[in-house]
Amino acid sequence: MRREIEEAPSAVERALADRASIAAVARVVEGAGPPWISIVARGTSDHAAVYARYLIETHLGVPVSLAAPSVTTIYEAPLQWRDGVLIAISQSGRSDDLVAVVERARAAGATTVSITNAPRSPLAVAAEWQLACHAGREQAVPATKTYLAELAVVAALVAALRPSSALAAALPTLGDALGAAFQRGRDWLADGALVDALAAGDRALVVSRGYNLATALELALKLKETTGVFAEAYSATDFAHGPAALSAPDVPLVVIRPDGPMGASIAGHELPLEVRARLTVTIGGAEVTDGPCSLSVGAGLPEALTPLAYAIPGLLLVEALARARGRDPDAPGGLTKITRTR
Amino acid sequence: MRREIEEAPSAVERALADRASIAAVARVVEGAGPPWISIVARGTSDHAAVYARYLIETHLGVPVSLAAPSVTTIYEAPLQWRDGVLIAISQSGRSDDLVAVVERARAAGATTVSITNAPRSPLAVAAEWQLACHAGREQAVPATKTYLAELAVVAALVAALRPSSALAAALPTLGDALGAAFQRGRDWLADGALVDALAAGDRALVVSRGYNLATALELALKLKETTGVFAEAYSATDFAHGPAALSAPDVPLVVIRPDGPMGASIAGHELPLEVRARLTVTIGGAEVTDGPCSLSVGAGLPEALTPLAYAIPGLLLVEALARARGRDPDAPGGLTKITRTR
Repeated sequence: MRREIEEAPSAVERALADRASIAAVARVVEGAGPPWISIVARGTSDHAAVYARYLIETHLGVPVSLAAPSVTTIYEAPLQWRDGVLIAISQSGRSDDLVAVVERARAAGATTVSITNAPRSPLAVAAEWQLACHAGREQAVPATKTYLAELAVVAALVAALRPSSALAAALPTLGDALGAAFQRGRDWLADGALVDALAAGDRALVVSRGYNLATALELALKLKETTGVFAEAYSATDFAHGPAALSAPDVPLVVIRPDGPMGASIAGHELPLEVRARLTVTIGGAEVTDGPCSLSVGAGLPEALTPLAYAIPGLLLVEALARARGRDPDAPGGLTKITRTR
Repeated sequence: MRREIEEAPSAVERALADRASIAAVARVVEGAGPPWISIVARGTSDHAAVYARYLIETHLGVPVSLAAPSVTTIYEAPLQWRDGVLIAISQSGRSDDLVAVVERARAAGATTVSITNAPRSPLAVAAEWQLACHAGREQAVPATKTYLAELAVVAALVAALRPSSALAAALPTLGDALGAAFQRGRDWLADGALVDALAAGDRALVVSRGYNLATALELALKLKETTGVFAEAYSATDFAHGPAALSAPDVPLVVIRPDGPMGASIAGHELPLEVRARLTVTIGGAEVTDGPCSLSVGAGLPEALTPLAYAIPGLLLVEALARARGRDPDAPGGLTKITRTR
């Protein structure tokens, strides 16, 4: 897992280098002029879908539906797919129900696009158009470099549709920024103090909002999968609805805090009154001061690309925490690489 | 809270009795013929939105987007609202960011509908069309009868658009079915054994899928808000991604299990291999056998209406558990009735 986190920056660069495929799919999406875009995914890839949702809505103005596969596979409802675009995201491309949704949507006339790390997988074959992650084989069960590559493919597709955006302008710098984020994350955790401080607890809250809600969701999932910590992710704005009641000295809080108005919304308004955590870990941008429990990475990236930068030290923290808790981060118990749904 | 759970069946009947408003909004939605419907809500009402999403997609075939307010309020993205329908759901009608989303969507030409329990609230005023919950004043901080009334309004709206559906046919029986669910739930919990068995733990998992994903989400939220139990809700299909790693003898599992293919998907496939919980609590339909840890309610209702029936014993369980854990279910610490977002 650790080696694959280190490989994430180069995986992202390979994903971004596939310009011809990205440009072709961008033309198809532009031609479809969809009134809405639907995204279907599971697990970690569902967090890439959450990222895609914010990115598409903010940059393209098209409303996004995060599809519920059971509407198709169990309830067998005939959705009016015809004018829409369906994007399916899956590392393995082998989730049966995602394949079923893509097949149904394609038969009903939707424009279908797959984003996978397995170009010959059933999902890639089922969709009319495909984008490959080019992340290389991922050996650890928890997805890391493939998650970042999925985010990069999504970002590249949206940038191709909005070539004059800050997003598009910053994309060529992304690989270097992620390499730097890895170095800074590794140095941050080198003395083991933060990991030791976190290792005893069995609960955690992870909070963010906007683009980085995906980061919070993904880090909470990775904490659960690989460390056994009962972690739950929240939008900062939903924080008053439950996590506030759960906050306690022994429940660490992890805050993903970009710069600007979103960061102010997360840090300035919702959190101070509610949280009683003894330990708050902050990963964020230039407005975050480096310290034993806080790390600033991805300076210079537009907020829309910070989920890739913030994920890297977050994943390094999870990996180290798994080892500190006596677990094998590469093969956590009870999990398999492919999720099959019947 | 307990009295308001008992009032839920009559609140639902009052909501359903407002046929003129429901028919009027149904005509407006039909006339709009929207390519997609967007729903915006927070907290408990967001679970009514999850219910609405499944109901609308399965019965109307229209893709649903559960809106992220920050796309409008923080990122200030111009979404292409014009041809769509936006439904805002809020008990109080006082969440500033929901009002902002409705105002923006309405100005951009969307058909806007509010569902609130406060007909003169800012949200009800902001939307062009409104549906009232008619639940009466809710005094306990945790929403119970207003949640059920929100579900009922959503069901009535969809039934009005599909008058020949099983959903529409069953709607007149709903109030009685919910009254029976209250009685059965009260009897189930009367000896206190189940509540005592649950009272010691501080974690729980709540699992369902489809229409009742809303029920799982809502019960997990209520467990957090009112009992301080760190509960997380999952779609059964996502269970292999994290909760499987978290399942342990001391983490009770609550399963919401409707009859039919969806129940088979939840109970038959995903759970048996993964879950090591010493205590599994099941609330479901006719296929669930009554017992100390399992309750069958809502027999005869179509699956699309079971979220109302299953919520009632679930909420009764939460309320009793809060008291057993020495908390005031009517006024849990750190929560307020209205969530303001800046």
